[in-house]
Amino acid sequence: MVSEDFKSMLQGKSVIRQLSEYATARGTEIGYENVFDFSLGNPSVPTPKAFTDAMIRLLTEEDPMTIHGYSQSQGIPRVRQAHADHLNKTYGMNYTAEHLFMTTGAAGAIAHAIRAVTKPGDEVVTVAPYFPEYNQYVNRTGAKLVIVPARTSDFQIDFDAMDAAMGEKTMAVLINSPNNPSGAMYTEETLKQLATLLYDKQEKYGHDVFLISDEPYREIVFDGRKCPYPARYYDNTLTCYSYSKSLSIPGERIGYVAVNPKATDADLISVTCGQISRGIGHNCPPSIIQLAVSEVLGVTADLSVYETNMNLLYDELKSLGFEVTRPGGTFYVMPKAPGGDSIAFCNKAREYDLILVPADTFAAPGFFRMAYCIDTEKVERSLPAFRKLMENY
Amino acid sequence: MVSEDFKSMLQGKSVIRQLSEYATARGTEIGYENVFDFSLGNPSVPTPKAFTDAMIRLLTEEDPMTIHGYSQSQGIPRVRQAHADHLNKTYGMNYTAEHLFMTTGAAGAIAHAIRAVTKPGDEVVTVAPYFPEYNQYVNRTGAKLVIVPARTSDFQIDFDAMDAAMGEKTMAVLINSPNNPSGAMYTEETLKQLATLLYDKQEKYGHDVFLISDEPYREIVFDGRKCPYPARYYDNTLTCYSYSKSLSIPGERIGYVAVNPKATDADLISVTCGQISRGIGHNCPPSIIQLAVSEVLGVTADLSVYETNMNLLYDELKSLGFEVTRPGGTFYVMPKAPGGDSIAFCNKAREYDLILVPADTFAAPGFFRMAYCIDTEKVERSLPAFRKLMENY
Repeated sequence: MVSEDFKSMLQGKSVIRQLSEYATARGTEIGYENVFDFSLGNPSVPTPKAFTDAMIRLLTEEDPMTIHGYSQSQGIPRVRQAHADHLNKTYGMNYTAEHLFMTTGAAGAIAHAIRAVTKPGDEVVTVAPYFPEYNQYVNRTGAKLVIVPARTSDFQIDFDAMDAAMGEKTMAVLINSPNNPSGAMYTEETLKQLATLLYDKQEKYGHDVFLISDEPYREIVFDGRKCPYPARYYDNTLTCYSYSKSLSIPGERIGYVAVNPKATDADLISVTCGQISRGIGHNCPPSIIQLAVSEVLGVTADLSVYETNMNLLYDELKSLGFEVTRPGGTFYVMPKAPGGDSIAFCNKAREYDLILVPADTFAAPGFFRMAYCIDTEKVERSLPAFRKLMENY
Repeated sequence: MVSEDFKSMLQGKSVIRQLSEYATARGTEIGYENVFDFSLGNPSVPTPKAFTDAMIRLLTEEDPMTIHGYSQSQGIPRVRQAHADHLNKTYGMNYTAEHLFMTTGAAGAIAHAIRAVTKPGDEVVTVAPYFPEYNQYVNRTGAKLVIVPARTSDFQIDFDAMDAAMGEKTMAVLINSPNNPSGAMYTEETLKQLATLLYDKQEKYGHDVFLISDEPYREIVFDGRKCPYPARYYDNTLTCYSYSKSLSIPGERIGYVAVNPKATDADLISVTCGQISRGIGHNCPPSIIQLAVSEVLGVTADLSVYETNMNLLYDELKSLGFEVTRPGGTFYVMPKAPGGDSIAFCNKAREYDLILVPADTFAAPGFFRMAYCIDTEKVERSLPAFRKLMENY
């Protein structure tokens, strides 16, 4: 009775999941500490004490009927107000509570944002390399995901290719900076050029084109830089955020959509997301988690280990002769596979217990992704394995 | 840019929401303690200490990377196993972890269950009176909700009407017992007769017909009875549960789908729900909430106040001459409006600061709903207002 459509989805286990399961199985043979598992983008640093303290304080000091009570479908009003205030202070914006919609992580944020500004048959453009779940978030609404090929020299945007990919039906552009899987952070120049292109398209086609900006990694940036905030460069921006990485709480499924107050229908989009949530049974994220994150705005886990790991890996990869763009942020790096066949290369790497993911799954064939959200000590121990691999490849 | 479709939804504020807002506004005038607000089905008894203790224990004693880590999309394996064990012990079933899918409350459960066993164009039959959000849960999937008129004598099922409502396209029947808004609990006899009808329809049309059983009130039953468990009577049953009422944690959005092991494709439905969740951005309920409820299985809040309130109201309504079916459970009662015009009656009641909801919104015109999840002391104080209303109506 389960439809064939879903049955066919069950066949297609993701490559990442398969590799992760292989790593776990190999770990039972040789000890997981000896498997250099770079497959999964799972935060590896502890949740900050401030978040735990906020949860315990809510549970012990506040009225249970309040902390466990129903939330408005847009989110708890004071939580949305606190988010608006924090974003205004941090990024110089003018959000009010009415521009915020609390979600179950970035997945929930993107799924609602797409539904709010597209209808079935519309097109949503994204830029390779990209997180493969975007296919689900977009195509399952009835809209169609269109891919702009990667600019492999630096993983900024190939604007000629994006210009060609956008047409009458393009209602939204979905970006992710800092980027999973490349680690690239879009520069201010990239965002300005993107805004120019989108304004041109709006004028050419006579309708709005929304920028849906997926930003779970925006606090994980390297070399002392700040991540430019896309909504500052383009009015029709819906910012999609998740606390999964910044607070190391991926299982708690908490994030938001922030609607640029200058966007078309800015006052309607959050409340529309509330209507959308009725039909997909999501309603709103748990009240206690909403309240807890609103008490620790601006706090992050100690994210410095990711930069330490990046530097170790990047330097070693360069010295071994890999072609690789230095990540601007995230906990990913995406080098080119020697010889150009990333699947063959990642298979060979397994012989050295290096678990690498062919980036074909991210629409970047010929590259491979490493998720270095693991202990630095393990990263260090993996370097000799890389050297051996390269001596024999 | 927000589609007209959604803009039109924004116009239609629910009657319940309007009445609740009126009650709040009136409360600022005369003190909310003097407004007999029977509008909202919001649990009014404290969350049990065992749940709070479980949350605090997880936060203080367990590894944060585990309690806040990603859940499998079906739910955390040990949480699903604990649920299977609990349901098996309580209802004599044979669930395994593979038959459980953890959800964001009953809304998430129903939304996933409908998508798992129907496709756009199919029909889902439900029985009046019914929770109006069912229109959203069903129609927004592309399937169509078909309503069986109420059997107003006792709010069990009118099987002739249900027989007539079911056709070739009926892929699922959605029931809610104990029922919001009538308070009726389906008897064993009703469930047996329902099963017979559904087995007949399966044979007649040569396809499965699933029973989707929405059971958030199954622990709130009166007169020392037990709520019969629908899955025991019909193999193709998907049980949808929420902890909102039993643990008084409606804002924490936690529940599940339990797939009867005897159902067609029983081993595929939970994993299919996991695939469905990818497209709607739901993923899975928060890890810590999943873990906490799995530690207090079988525990409930002190639900006895609802029976106390029901008895006070039912006796008074009867003595005032109302036609009313005695609720078998929930915290609702649905009397007939004197004169038959429930909207006129509820408007008149407002003059006595009695906030009652016309049951037209639940497809039971001529009746009104009272949600008596309020303090008993307030219920007692409302009785003279009822007497005055009836003297003047």
